[in-house]
Amino acid sequence: MLSREENETLTRTGPGTPMGTLFRSYWLPVLLSEQLPEKDGPQVRVKILGEDLLAFRDAGGRVGLIEPRCPHRGADLYFGRNEEGGIRCAYHGWKFDADGRCLDMPTVPPETARTLCQKASIRSYPTREWGGMVWAYMAQAPAGHEPPPLPQMEFALVPPEHRYVSKKLQECNWAQAAEGGIDTAHFSFLHMPVARSNEEFSERALRAVRGYSAKSMSQDHVRWMREDPRPRYHVRRHAAGLVLGASRQGEPGEHYWRIAQYLMPCHGYTPSAAEGQTYHGQSWVPIDDHSCWIFCYSWNPERPLTAQERASYVTGGAVYPARGADYVPLRNRSNEYLLDRRMQKLENFTGIEGVSEQDAAIQDSQGEIADRTRELLGPTDVAVVHFRRLMLEAAAQVAGGAAAPAADNPQAYLVRGGGTIAPATEDFEAVMRRRFGDELGRVEVDRPEVQSK
Amino acid sequence: MLSREENETLTRTGPGTPMGTLFRSYWLPVLLSEQLPEKDGPQVRVKILGEDLLAFRDAGGRVGLIEPRCPHRGADLYFGRNEEGGIRCAYHGWKFDADGRCLDMPTVPPETARTLCQKASIRSYPTREWGGMVWAYMAQAPAGHEPPPLPQMEFALVPPEHRYVSKKLQECNWAQAAEGGIDTAHFSFLHMPVARSNEEFSERALRAVRGYSAKSMSQDHVRWMREDPRPRYHVRRHAAGLVLGASRQGEPGEHYWRIAQYLMPCHGYTPSAAEGQTYHGQSWVPIDDHSCWIFCYSWNPERPLTAQERASYVTGGAVYPARGADYVPLRNRSNEYLLDRRMQKLENFTGIEGVSEQDAAIQDSQGEIADRTRELLGPTDVAVVHFRRLMLEAAAQVAGGAAAPAADNPQAYLVRGGGTIAPATEDFEAVMRRRFGDELGRVEVDRPEVQSK
Amino acid sequence: MLSREENETLTRTGPGTPMGTLFRSYWLPVLLSEQLPEKDGPQVRVKILGEDLLAFRDAGGRVGLIEPRCPHRGADLYFGRNEEGGIRCAYHGWKFDADGRCLDMPTVPPETARTLCQKASIRSYPTREWGGMVWAYMAQAPAGHEPPPLPQMEFALVPPEHRYVSKKLQECNWAQAAEGGIDTAHFSFLHMPVARSNEEFSERALRAVRGYSAKSMSQDHVRWMREDPRPRYHVRRHAAGLVLGASRQGEPGEHYWRIAQYLMPCHGYTPSAAEGQTYHGQSWVPIDDHSCWIFCYSWNPERPLTAQERASYVTGGAVYPARGADYVPLRNRSNEYLLDRRMQKLENFTGIEGVSEQDAAIQDSQGEIADRTRELLGPTDVAVVHFRRLMLEAAAQVAGGAAAPAADNPQAYLVRGGGTIAPATEDFEAVMRRRFGDELGRVEVDRPEVQSK
Repeated sequence: MLSREENETLTRTGPGTPMGTLFRSYWLPVLLSEQLPEKDGPQVRVKILGEDLLAFRDAGGRVGLIEPRCPHRGADLYFGRNEEGGIRCAYHGWKFDADGRCLDMPTVPPETARTLCQKASIRSYPTREWGGMVWAYMAQAPAGHEPPPLPQMEFALVPPEHRYVSKKLQECNWAQAAEGGIDTAHFSFLHMPVARSNEEFSERALRAVRGYSAKSMSQDHVRWMREDPRPRYHVRRHAAGLVLGASRQGEPGEHYWRIAQYLMPCHGYTPSAAEGQTYHGQSWVPIDDHSCWIFCYSWNPERPLTAQERASYVTGGAVYPARGADYVPLRNRSNEYLLDRRMQKLENFTGIEGVSEQDAAIQDSQGEIADRTRELLGPTDVAVVHFRRLMLEAAAQVAGGAAAPAADNPQAYLVRGGGTIAPATEDFEAVMRRRFGDELGRVEVDRPEVQSK
Repeated sequence: MLSREENETLTRTGPGTPMGTLFRSYWLPVLLSEQLPEKDGPQVRVKILGEDLLAFRDAGGRVGLIEPRCPHRGADLYFGRNEEGGIRCAYHGWKFDADGRCLDMPTVPPETARTLCQKASIRSYPTREWGGMVWAYMAQAPAGHEPPPLPQMEFALVPPEHRYVSKKLQECNWAQAAEGGIDTAHFSFLHMPVARSNEEFSERALRAVRGYSAKSMSQDHVRWMREDPRPRYHVRRHAAGLVLGASRQGEPGEHYWRIAQYLMPCHGYTPSAAEGQTYHGQSWVPIDDHSCWIFCYSWNPERPLTAQERASYVTGGAVYPARGADYVPLRNRSNEYLLDRRMQKLENFTGIEGVSEQDAAIQDSQGEIADRTRELLGPTDVAVVHFRRLMLEAAAQVAGGAAAPAADNPQAYLVRGGGTIAPATEDFEAVMRRRFGDELGRVEVDRPEVQSK
Repeated sequence: MLSREENETLTRTGPGTPMGTLFRSYWLPVLLSEQLPEKDGPQVRVKILGEDLLAFRDAGGRVGLIEPRCPHRGADLYFGRNEEGGIRCAYHGWKFDADGRCLDMPTVPPETARTLCQKASIRSYPTREWGGMVWAYMAQAPAGHEPPPLPQMEFALVPPEHRYVSKKLQECNWAQAAEGGIDTAHFSFLHMPVARSNEEFSERALRAVRGYSAKSMSQDHVRWMREDPRPRYHVRRHAAGLVLGASRQGEPGEHYWRIAQYLMPCHGYTPSAAEGQTYHGQSWVPIDDHSCWIFCYSWNPERPLTAQERASYVTGGAVYPARGADYVPLRNRSNEYLLDRRMQKLENFTGIEGVSEQDAAIQDSQGEIADRTRELLGPTDVAVVHFRRLMLEAAAQVAGGAAAPAADNPQAYLVRGGGTIAPATEDFEAVMRRRFGDELGRVEVDRPEVQSK
């Protein structure tokens, strides 16, 4: 439970807010590289942290992220023309490059233009392409300030064939969506099949784990989660955030462990991947305080993704919903996620198709911004409690002038999460060491640090 | 004409308002029994008096009306599963019964759950099924306080075959809709045919009285109303509210009387039924301050309703509009009631099909909340004036700590309204005695007081 | 650049605002005569300067413009019946004529009605039909105050066969739309074809000048505008407003002049017409502060308009967009003007079809109300600067109790704007005299002053 002030701090990320300032201390995914497929191609409206922006790929292939307002008379550069080195305003032809510099002022005599151009710069943010996404560094940085290095997240380091990247719209505040991502206890209800027989259960469990390999998520895993709805949580803080383990009773003498990662400021790795299987992650990036983009990525460090894996991600599986070309899930707030009460009675606990959709429905249902001043938290909410503490402390730290945790420590992002089965006697540290070779899930990668082009 | 303060008091019914407190002193219809057809069936969102609620029928057949918010993390119980004795939250499985008690907390260890359950109760309101509708008693009653008895309205006392019950959405404040219901003067214009000949008039008058028996409403009745647009009003207060008589010139030497009832806090009986014919009533229940449900009911104390009567109610007749499966009239604010100017020129005074729809159009047209500070009331508005006085006095009375009028007097609701033809020399009292056997329209029913299951 | 206060003053036209008071000192177009085609026909909702009004044509053919609220109980007279001399309220039959007088109160006894009718007048504004439009004089004039004469705009003086009149919805504040109309510099970008060859350019230039005669606007004119994006402005104030000349380099030794007129408070004549060709004008009439009707008119003083001209106006050409029966452009804010990025790359500068639509898109893009406190104005914005000064001075003048400029001077509106080619050595005055026979564009018309029926 939070005070009203804490809840405001946690959830508000507009310019000048403490959490907004924390977010702006990091590189953030702002759109997918595939949304800007061609040089000099169509610009795209982007709203991030409450700021209306315009993204475009210039003639050189560089991505600009700029304020969309022409400083001449205030026309929207979305209607401008992306041509040879910048966006030209459609009203009177003023032109701006990816750094927001005014390159041309055809309505102004050349002699005046040279000086007026100085005053005509527009706000722009540095960008990088990294792991199939465009990242931006939105700090109000003093001139000459060098952005920090990119976080060395594993999905961005593997070859492109080893990864799949997409995004999905979520119609609620970022923080409750993130809480849903690290709250691994809810699988026991939210994603659970309803069945009258073991055969029915098996068949329906397979639907719930669509998109996962059988080694990561089988009907046995689902059954263990049904039979033990009270996982025991173990949370450890590390340089980049939190590692969150939850153990459930498995077969006699065994525990089924699900271990998630939360990385500052808004990245989460899912707890399902068995060793050698495909990993999944999500980044909750606020559009405004009532909606967010969830960037989703899957990667396999050891092999390219299979055609079958990709097909399941495109059509709805693992962390991906069935969605339209605009990245809006087909099941969404406006249509009540196509909730089917007959399905809820007979087939699964929500009557909603798809694990990602079930997550979205219940998180949206907490309100546009969840009211955390009225809650009754229990032992399975410990991950959520740690998450809130982490975020509020970091926001306070940055508001006090300190550096944002891990913002300058790209290697701290080299961690993994995943699932495993362990003897019931093994403690969290031992499980971590056996599963990941490290008690915090840190990975060594045989590659030099890579930065995008 | 009211002061701004009086108009606010009359129209605002949210929690804590004087009128809202008055309404909450009575049993109120909140949905139709047919909306919850099966035990353990789909729950239904209900908004009444500005409160968002959830109605469900439990495994025992009892109707719960609860706050839809799970106290654990605030998920919406609308997405929960109605199963065996209560609604189970879809997020982590907490379960609540029709009294709002927490029955199960699967994420909490059993020893803790027992005590935590005490704190996890959610708001719930007592309900009864009565006359085909679910009624709720929404007072903030102290623990152990017994709700009052149900109002003994005749439609609820007759056998089910003798009645028809439905509801319709109205897109304006409850009070102006109620005023339209008791303002029987407007028939002379709002519902009047336009005709170039007596034949045309007769044919169109029949359309205006669709759903009524010829004895209650014939072309003669319509003609009398056209020829005398200034009915003389006679209003008497009684234990449960008001009886409102309006007489018009009929055939020479005769008066055509239309006598309505208004029963606290929001029920009205229409003035048309001739003796032995089917009666009609409406209850204006605020959804919020800008819309209301009008519950509509028709009953015949002496015989079952005919198939023809039912058919006319289902498709639009008497107090019923043509409507969709969601109880929203097909002709509504969004489509301007399908106003047809050609029809208005040649066939009826509004160009809108249907008496219920004509009422809705003109009442909605007064604004979301009618501005009663700018009015020019005349003698035919006397019913409206009495209604406002009744409601404002009762609200003040309850705000002052007194009991709500008739809330504890179920028998006071045993009254009838209707129409009759009387010698021009007969006064209101005599007309009432001849038509109803009682000067206030009170009825004796040969049945013990009935309460719902 | 304006201060925040100046920007508010310029853009707000509701009752009681300085600019609203200025606008109300003039006759204003409020709807088209064709919207009220028949006597006693359907009334039409009109919103002008933030006021909700009702327009109707009475049995005598006169147009009433009245407050739509019945003073009895506040029903909306839009639902009333237009019959024999006035609108009759659909609720209880009170009736109002075009002057807002209450003619009949059928629910009130005749003896009372006579006096009550005095109190039951509703607000009404004088109207005239003039040039195919209904004009209203919306001043809060003292009783007996005679409205000023109608502005003698040439399109209203020519025979009906010589003119075409329509209107179009614009989804932004009136002032930025008006600024777009007098800002003739933007043609060099906003309306410019994109071409890879002279042939392509010629063919596409023809699309940009659809609706204009070749003498007024040919591919040469378009080419001159492309090649010289920095017109030199010459602005002169006259009795009714401003004449605004802009010269560009034409063929060697020649200047291509485009000369617009701005007439108080919201009329503009376009700068394209060559001598003897068809003239065009637009009037920006605020609906509210976020949208306006642009009344559009074309006229030829010397000959009837051709069928081809009319066809191009109806389907989209000159100042007319392709539009629906409701006068809403098919390309509008809700569908982003059907912006086509492929067209923007290959065919024209905006990717939007139609000159009127391109104007609307870029003007709307400045925001619902353009923020003039953040601008970088240059020499081509001089027309805009003069316009703002004219309007702000006039508003201050009227607020100070002085008469509105030209409100009582109908002959001052007899001016023309248009285009011409002149020797590069000729100054603005000489160009005006040669093109219009007068240095301010004043015209002598061989007709007595005409007032509408």
